[in-house]
Amino acid sequence: MTQGSATASQHKQAARQGQGDNMSCFTNADLQSMAHALRLLSVDAIEAAKSGHPGLPLGMADVATVLWAEFLNVSPTNPAWPNRDRFVLSAGHGSMLLYALLHLGGFDLPLAQLKQFRVLGSQTPGHPEYGETPGVDVTTGPLAQGFAHAVGMALSEAMLRAEAGADLMDHFTYVVAGDGCLMEGLSSEAASFAGHMKLARLVVLFDDNKISIDGPTSLATSDDHAKRFEGMGWQVLTCDGHDMDAIRQALQAARAETQRPSFIRCQTTIGYGAPTKQGTAAVHGAPLGGDEACAARATFGYKDAAPFEIKNDVQDLWQKAVAQRGQKREADWQKACDKKLQSDPLTTQLFLERLHNQHPQNWTAAFDQACKAVFAAPKADEAPLSEATRVSFGKALEALQKTLPGLVGGSADLTPSNNTKTKAMKAVTAPDYVGDYIHFGVREHLMGAALNGMVLHGGLVPYGGTFLAFSDYMRPAIRLAALMKIPTLYIFTHDSVGLGEDGPTHQPIEHLWGLRDIPNLSLFRPADASEVQECLKAALLRRDGPSALILSRQKVAPVRAIADPKGQLQDACLKGGYVLKDALGPYQVTLWATGSEVSLALLVQQALETQGVGARLVSVPCLELLAQQSSLYRRTLYQGNADGAEGALPVQVSLEAGVTRSWAAYLGKGAMHFGIDRFGASGKGEAVMHALGLEPQAIANSILQRLQKA
Amino acid sequence: MTQGSATASQHKQAARQGQGDNMSCFTNADLQSMAHALRLLSVDAIEAAKSGHPGLPLGMADVATVLWAEFLNVSPTNPAWPNRDRFVLSAGHGSMLLYALLHLGGFDLPLAQLKQFRVLGSQTPGHPEYGETPGVDVTTGPLAQGFAHAVGMALSEAMLRAEAGADLMDHFTYVVAGDGCLMEGLSSEAASFAGHMKLARLVVLFDDNKISIDGPTSLATSDDHAKRFEGMGWQVLTCDGHDMDAIRQALQAARAETQRPSFIRCQTTIGYGAPTKQGTAAVHGAPLGGDEACAARATFGYKDAAPFEIKNDVQDLWQKAVAQRGQKREADWQKACDKKLQSDPLTTQLFLERLHNQHPQNWTAAFDQACKAVFAAPKADEAPLSEATRVSFGKALEALQKTLPGLVGGSADLTPSNNTKTKAMKAVTAPDYVGDYIHFGVREHLMGAALNGMVLHGGLVPYGGTFLAFSDYMRPAIRLAALMKIPTLYIFTHDSVGLGEDGPTHQPIEHLWGLRDIPNLSLFRPADASEVQECLKAALLRRDGPSALILSRQKVAPVRAIADPKGQLQDACLKGGYVLKDALGPYQVTLWATGSEVSLALLVQQALETQGVGARLVSVPCLELLAQQSSLYRRTLYQGNADGAEGALPVQVSLEAGVTRSWAAYLGKGAMHFGIDRFGASGKGEAVMHALGLEPQAIANSILQRLQKA
Repeated sequence: MTQGSATASQHKQAARQGQGDNMSCFTNADLQSMAHALRLLSVDAIEAAKSGHPGLPLGMADVATVLWAEFLNVSPTNPAWPNRDRFVLSAGHGSMLLYALLHLGGFDLPLAQLKQFRVLGSQTPGHPEYGETPGVDVTTGPLAQGFAHAVGMALSEAMLRAEAGADLMDHFTYVVAGDGCLMEGLSSEAASFAGHMKLARLVVLFDDNKISIDGPTSLATSDDHAKRFEGMGWQVLTCDGHDMDAIRQALQAARAETQRPSFIRCQTTIGYGAPTKQGTAAVHGAPLGGDEACAARATFGYKDAAPFEIKNDVQDLWQKAVAQRGQKREADWQKACDKKLQSDPLTTQLFLERLHNQHPQNWTAAFDQACKAVFAAPKADEAPLSEATRVSFGKALEALQKTLPGLVGGSADLTPSNNTKTKAMKAVTAPDYVGDYIHFGVREHLMGAALNGMVLHGGLVPYGGTFLAFSDYMRPAIRLAALMKIPTLYIFTHDSVGLGEDGPTHQPIEHLWGLRDIPNLSLFRPADASEVQECLKAALLRRDGPSALILSRQKVAPVRAIADPKGQLQDACLKGGYVLKDALGPYQVTLWATGSEVSLALLVQQALETQGVGARLVSVPCLELLAQQSSLYRRTLYQGNADGAEGALPVQVSLEAGVTRSWAAYLGKGAMHFGIDRFGASGKGEAVMHALGLEPQAIANSILQRLQKA
Repeated sequence: MTQGSATASQHKQAARQGQGDNMSCFTNADLQSMAHALRLLSVDAIEAAKSGHPGLPLGMADVATVLWAEFLNVSPTNPAWPNRDRFVLSAGHGSMLLYALLHLGGFDLPLAQLKQFRVLGSQTPGHPEYGETPGVDVTTGPLAQGFAHAVGMALSEAMLRAEAGADLMDHFTYVVAGDGCLMEGLSSEAASFAGHMKLARLVVLFDDNKISIDGPTSLATSDDHAKRFEGMGWQVLTCDGHDMDAIRQALQAARAETQRPSFIRCQTTIGYGAPTKQGTAAVHGAPLGGDEACAARATFGYKDAAPFEIKNDVQDLWQKAVAQRGQKREADWQKACDKKLQSDPLTTQLFLERLHNQHPQNWTAAFDQACKAVFAAPKADEAPLSEATRVSFGKALEALQKTLPGLVGGSADLTPSNNTKTKAMKAVTAPDYVGDYIHFGVREHLMGAALNGMVLHGGLVPYGGTFLAFSDYMRPAIRLAALMKIPTLYIFTHDSVGLGEDGPTHQPIEHLWGLRDIPNLSLFRPADASEVQECLKAALLRRDGPSALILSRQKVAPVRAIADPKGQLQDACLKGGYVLKDALGPYQVTLWATGSEVSLALLVQQALETQGVGARLVSVPCLELLAQQSSLYRRTLYQGNADGAEGALPVQVSLEAGVTRSWAAYLGKGAMHFGIDRFGASGKGEAVMHALGLEPQAIANSILQRLQKA
């Protein structure tokens, strides 16, 4: 360690925190054997798979050993223990390092699984996948995502510690990052934000091996990482990544720091122990191959040993290293919980449920009630109000904040545009972390990943907003949430050319379908204030995947109040799609619309009716929810006239201010699609809409022409 | 200027470069009047539009004035002059500053256009749009894009200067960036790469006004930008952004630096001159409003003046400032060109054409010829070779490099996986910049934007590669290329679950349609080596928008050689879709497939034929090209049997290893779609394909069942 040596008082503080309990249990020879066991398993699994990345596991085995054996608090028998330290392998291609750690550390990952590395159906996929393997805290692989997700975890820890006290929440978040992670802009967003938030419990272990896929990192970067990270408010430490004492000292110094996150440059040799390939790009992403693997195994002390066979004493060391400390720590934490449960049962119970991301029972009823207070019904002689759905969202948030504990908002520097902050919300700032609103800065990608990290951590219900067009900046993080099946909530306002003058760079066109195409993401595009409330509720009820709530900048008609003054359609959005306003009699047309185009469809419906053509109007706030309804229910939306009589199928018409192509899958051949299959233009929103064909009379005329032809 | 004062020798060097010719032409009072004119036009246009962002134009008017009046070399009467300095307003919301500069600087942007700011159809859209306004070098608005595009421009300048000499290429690239640009991770990627490449002709003017939309930047960032940028290899300078002398000195120092790009912190007051709103977030993105605007106008010396009316003497100053220097510089450059044209006509003519992004005449014939040499036909007794399309691409590149001057490759640290580098290509390194391959590092977003910047600059034909799944990281840049209608070429390999063991984080599912949904992007997914050659050619023939070439990691059958041994289908890909292998007689099924699934479709076709069911196989490498063919041609793909007899329409079947939904728009109701509507899994590529239903016999059976039902 060459910089920032920990002082004696800092060491004392670390000890006071009750962590690193058995720092001195292991001799360096022990640690070496333990590291070599990680290496052996990695080499053998990658050889067996004939595919994989040995470079990182061999290079970072020593660092990982010191961290896991002497510092990391996890509970192998209870991987979901909420107060565990988080370990994030941001350089996810080094997955065998993690699997070897989990296996030897006593997690439920038997050797048979390691032998099935990268085989379809195993618990040891090519990159770590959350939900597939006990002890994997986050899916990684796309570079820098782990780093940025970890920032969300560390932020949650700081906020929950501030809320409930260190006896209930008190852990570190460790990240292993490679050169690739650091080159990605996402890691700069993450580091800048973490430094600003003074997330001192975040420790990044940089595998500084100077090798990337193309060759030496000097081909592509000359960064002075120490200077960069110091400039972003981090403590920077350096250690020889193959010197156990130096690694330990660096980790101690990182843990002793209370004001800044820590960045530890671990100077390593990629592929350490592979006699001819170590230190070269050749060892990054391909098996060592027979002879090289053989020689490496000998270096690790396993000459002529059977594949995957770890010496018993080394297995014992590992078992002792991880499980014993973890069990003790977990028991201490459970005692603290029990104590709190006695002194303050209701609050504590609620908090513990939150740590497992459980919403309180009956919160939806309370939310509905609160909404009634926020959305005052118009007086008898007043017309219901037109308002932008982003404004309705801001109101619904007021109700939600009162009824859903742990709610935390945020925006990528568009707070007044996204309406993501209620009046009662308070910005979270270091060092007290008390609050429920996060200014993420103009860092959409970090926001998307940090929201995921907060959800993965448990304890808070985060959401974050930006413009829909800029969802592109955070798309890789959205995809990961969908893949991990976690309920992150993204808020995207300014959802079409209707935003107007900002022009085509800001006007979404392809984004609705672009997001809907991500498997397991639910996209909600409410049409008015009523639909906003219901869609917000539906999104929060969803527990097995992320949701995107898509909101307009411009005003929309209060379509529900107009079509359903008696309120019979309450909670219709929970079905994803429903008949908003049926024709009075037989009809020849079914109009399908989402979001702001439901207002448009109402006008088209009127225009058709004045020509004597009946039309049914179906609002479709969420195609994914609709797809989950019975086929009977879905068929009724297409077929069957209002009077129940069977007849020729009506002409199906979609209205949505974006790419039209995919609507064909829902409405079949012969359907008509009104949307926008080109980039937008700068001008008043309504003018742009009209110029691009989204004008009620023009649409009605097209439909009438079609009917005449048929 | 507080750091890095330029030395006398550096000033001499700047003078030697013949730039900043009339540094001393203007008094500070002149400059002040000129800056106020920019402010006035900005305020008046934004008031007239009732929409816009006055904060930046008012804050950066002084900096912009010194730069444009004393340094910037542009040619108002010839905005496309290839050797002009580039001016990139990365903080694109400050568009009125740019429009005011262009108008007063003598570009063809009359006052009438400024009065139509943000009005539909005007040349003054809300954010600057390339192609809409003379003098706008790049579309900006999504933050940090301008910065990153400028890095590509500066890199092109350095490479072309190295190639052709400073008499033909010798200019600076200036960027105005705001806090938002710097918070985006993209700018960190851009800065890190620019520092590594020592792009000393790149000058970033940071509008350091300490205000963002949410409020003071201290809400979201504590970055020490000087330290960060120094850590990335930049010269960092600081000036009072309202002190003309300090601004000039900083620009001189930036221009004198020969080893590092320069970052000038211009300490400004946002909304400078707005009496009550300056220095606050309120002035960032909304008109000043009547009284405030009135008071500001008085500050600028235009009390009671009519809107948009600039004093004549100030207009004269501006006219003189920009046009005179520009015309002289352009004439000098033209003389140098003429001289070179005499001494070396062929090379010079070709180079000048390249500067306007013109490919040589008949390059395609030369390319075809070269391909023949690279792709040796199998000998009579040999079966044609199965190979991955990424491998075929690597071969086609060998042919392309010999036939298309200016070709420059690159990859985001996946060179050996993307096969983007031919053996003959040489990496471009500072300070000599000789070469034709760029190691972009693990910076996909920067790569996407820099490629665009290189295309916008002119002179080179760049392409860059990464994995298809990581196209998400650069999606905002791809969108901008499509919006700007520029022919950037993106290479995406590892295009489906067929990549295998790396698992779902790396396996594209939604990406094909996600990209196709971007208006004006052409997506090519070739099926084998022949299609790779043709698609690469088609992509390069395209001049009015970007193309993405999608390639497999796994081997595919040589479908063209199998189906068309006589080579009668040559260049069929240029139609976007074509009958690859027709049924021998009447047929009941049409198989539509792209990329690696054409191999699959061939097997399905065989399996059907063994059951006595005829099937036509249509290969669709590019839906966008197919859409441009005549409706007659397109109809023949669907209809008409091989023997010319009319009959019932065959069952339409799509095969593509990705989201299936959008195929319905092409194949109509009743079509069958075989694809993947969920995330993939880690395992051998073929095993994953089969597990997810993409197995020829299973598909054939499903089709046979459908035929039996019908």
